[in-house]
Amino acid sequence: MEYGGLFSEDTRSFFRSPVRDIFRRVDLNSIYSFAGGYPSAETFPLEEFKETMREAVDRYGGKAFQYGATQGVTELREVLSARYGVPMERIQITTSSQQGIDVCTRILADPGDVILTSDPSYLGALQSFRSYRADVVGVPHEDAPERFRQAWRAAISRVLESGRKVKFLYMIPDFQNPSGETLTLREREILVSLAEEYGFLVVEDSPYRELRYSGEPVPTMYSLAPDTVLHLGSFSKIFAPGFRLGWIFGNPEVLDKIYVCKQSLDLCPPVFDQYVAAEFMGSGRLDRNLVKSISLYREKRDLMLSLLEENMPDGVTWTHPDGGLFLFLTMPEDFDSVAFYDTALDAGVAYVAGSFFRTDGGGRNTMRLNFSFMTPERITEGIKLLAKLLGGR
Amino acid sequence: MEYGGLFSEDTRSFFRSPVRDIFRRVDLNSIYSFAGGYPSAETFPLEEFKETMREAVDRYGGKAFQYGATQGVTELREVLSARYGVPMERIQITTSSQQGIDVCTRILADPGDVILTSDPSYLGALQSFRSYRADVVGVPHEDAPERFRQAWRAAISRVLESGRKVKFLYMIPDFQNPSGETLTLREREILVSLAEEYGFLVVEDSPYRELRYSGEPVPTMYSLAPDTVLHLGSFSKIFAPGFRLGWIFGNPEVLDKIYVCKQSLDLCPPVFDQYVAAEFMGSGRLDRNLVKSISLYREKRDLMLSLLEENMPDGVTWTHPDGGLFLFLTMPEDFDSVAFYDTALDAGVAYVAGSFFRTDGGGRNTMRLNFSFMTPERITEGIKLLAKLLGGR
Repeated sequence: MEYGGLFSEDTRSFFRSPVRDIFRRVDLNSIYSFAGGYPSAETFPLEEFKETMREAVDRYGGKAFQYGATQGVTELREVLSARYGVPMERIQITTSSQQGIDVCTRILADPGDVILTSDPSYLGALQSFRSYRADVVGVPHEDAPERFRQAWRAAISRVLESGRKVKFLYMIPDFQNPSGETLTLREREILVSLAEEYGFLVVEDSPYRELRYSGEPVPTMYSLAPDTVLHLGSFSKIFAPGFRLGWIFGNPEVLDKIYVCKQSLDLCPPVFDQYVAAEFMGSGRLDRNLVKSISLYREKRDLMLSLLEENMPDGVTWTHPDGGLFLFLTMPEDFDSVAFYDTALDAGVAYVAGSFFRTDGGGRNTMRLNFSFMTPERITEGIKLLAKLLGGR
Repeated sequence: MEYGGLFSEDTRSFFRSPVRDIFRRVDLNSIYSFAGGYPSAETFPLEEFKETMREAVDRYGGKAFQYGATQGVTELREVLSARYGVPMERIQITTSSQQGIDVCTRILADPGDVILTSDPSYLGALQSFRSYRADVVGVPHEDAPERFRQAWRAAISRVLESGRKVKFLYMIPDFQNPSGETLTLREREILVSLAEEYGFLVVEDSPYRELRYSGEPVPTMYSLAPDTVLHLGSFSKIFAPGFRLGWIFGNPEVLDKIYVCKQSLDLCPPVFDQYVAAEFMGSGRLDRNLVKSISLYREKRDLMLSLLEENMPDGVTWTHPDGGLFLFLTMPEDFDSVAFYDTALDAGVAYVAGSFFRTDGGGRNTMRLNFSFMTPERITEGIKLLAKLLGGR
């Protein structure tokens, strides 16, 4: 059978994640992998997980294995409500925060509508935006607040002049993926006020927010404008990505559209996973474990920074993130991280080329390095190997 | 903020599941619920589940809590491959078989494309089809093979004459939801040959196939034409719906589109759930448990049939399914099961009005009754109450 003529228009805009495709080609444990956004398996307390699961079965019985409510089970929404001070009717559980991104795009963007984002931005979000044939407009970061505001306002004006609509602005304000950078309060206020002025929503993607290793927390954009901002949270970095769970905080009218959409997407989030998450979070285990994870990741970040300092050749620079899982390298102008990738992988080291995170394919002289996944020993060996390949010490 | 102008065109075609909305309004255990397609909690062997989870953690360690491959974890795909004799490259794991329906629609249907289905058909599928603004064309069942073929061919011809494309035909051939009916081999062959003749795909939705209480299995449509049929399977009825897991068997070229789409939908199916399912199925526990479930559901079906026989007023008829979870009642022509619903719910009994399963809103004198969820005692009380409300004995 000839399938070509049967596929939908959307499929023409699908593009593969180079990150996920690496994992299809290569066993992660056989190489030095700076590629994925994987938490360290050391942060999974297996005995506590077993104990929590036993408790969840004993406490909830058959209910834990039955179909559940589309908005998520009450017990998990209650724990989130108490932890973050958000009313129950503003909480929707999602089957991963990736689903949160996808469903927000689905209910908001028609083909040709514009989604604004930082440039670079999260690859999985770009995949989702483009899969609905939205136009993605990236805005590079400007440091001074007034130039920051002008850059975003100019981007919005160009979109409106072209006769298109801005549906939402997508941002990872804390320890951004891939850059590791955090928006200041002033920058957050600017983005929210532009959204209110021009009448579009902000999707605040916050999977790394609780992984802070230095500096002071900045208020979420959601806390500044809870009816303008849809806040996406994730259990993947604070609990375990193997349970596919995230959440959305937002205005109930918007959440209702997501609720109805989610009925046809997958009926409900994974029910057993939700009860385990509720138990793990509600019993205080999650917070105790998070303290350990933060300490572990802080050490790894510091190790990465000092290894880069010691080993990288002149002309390479990198970000100094206060949290999250990534730092972002900039090589000399003529370096091509896409072309170099096969050489690196053949030598046994993987990264993600920075241009994959760009809306315009630029930034070929950049790369994203993850510091959470590997052990300190393997990070050390891996960075030394990568630096050597790049002509460093 | 005014949200109205921000929502996508698709959202205008969203409609709420009356079934899921019942569950939002009413505690299922406080009423006689014939409404949902819920398995009985008696079929969840809690101690075995705990044991299986412990084993999964011990065997797979941190891997069970990490991100997994988009196509599903190898171990689960291997168990399915062995059980159903399908090659690995033809297996995609989905986050519920509802996601299977949704993702097939997403990669195939543009607004205005036609999806053919039986009339009545599964409500969650209709929700998904319409959410992508596909035109759903329902074909009522004809008993004689030649009339069956003519009815489908006539429907296809009308679509083609109107200048629209048929993208796929959606069917639940075994113990259909809602009717409980099973297609004969001859009927399956006719549908597959029409798909091949006209060049569209068949989506065979098979969540109930292994719940057979009488009669002989009929070959799957997938086994007749594995490159024309996408076969959707589900763990919800043979294991537990609280683990959101299903699978798709199909041609690798089509599965590759689903694979890329799924990257942006939710990255990967729930990983821990998959390892537990692999352990439960691979260890033989699933088959042992399935024997018990089948025996339990057979008793409940037989009980329902004899209760209906004893208690229903004249002029009410019903299907006699060989398996699955439902039977379908037809009341006298002037009965309105939508209007009657509130009366029934006030009296403490819930069903789903048959018109919700119709593509044309017809069949208001029909209703779907589930017989798997409640205990025999509550089924007995519930049917007596319903029959009394309907003017029976």
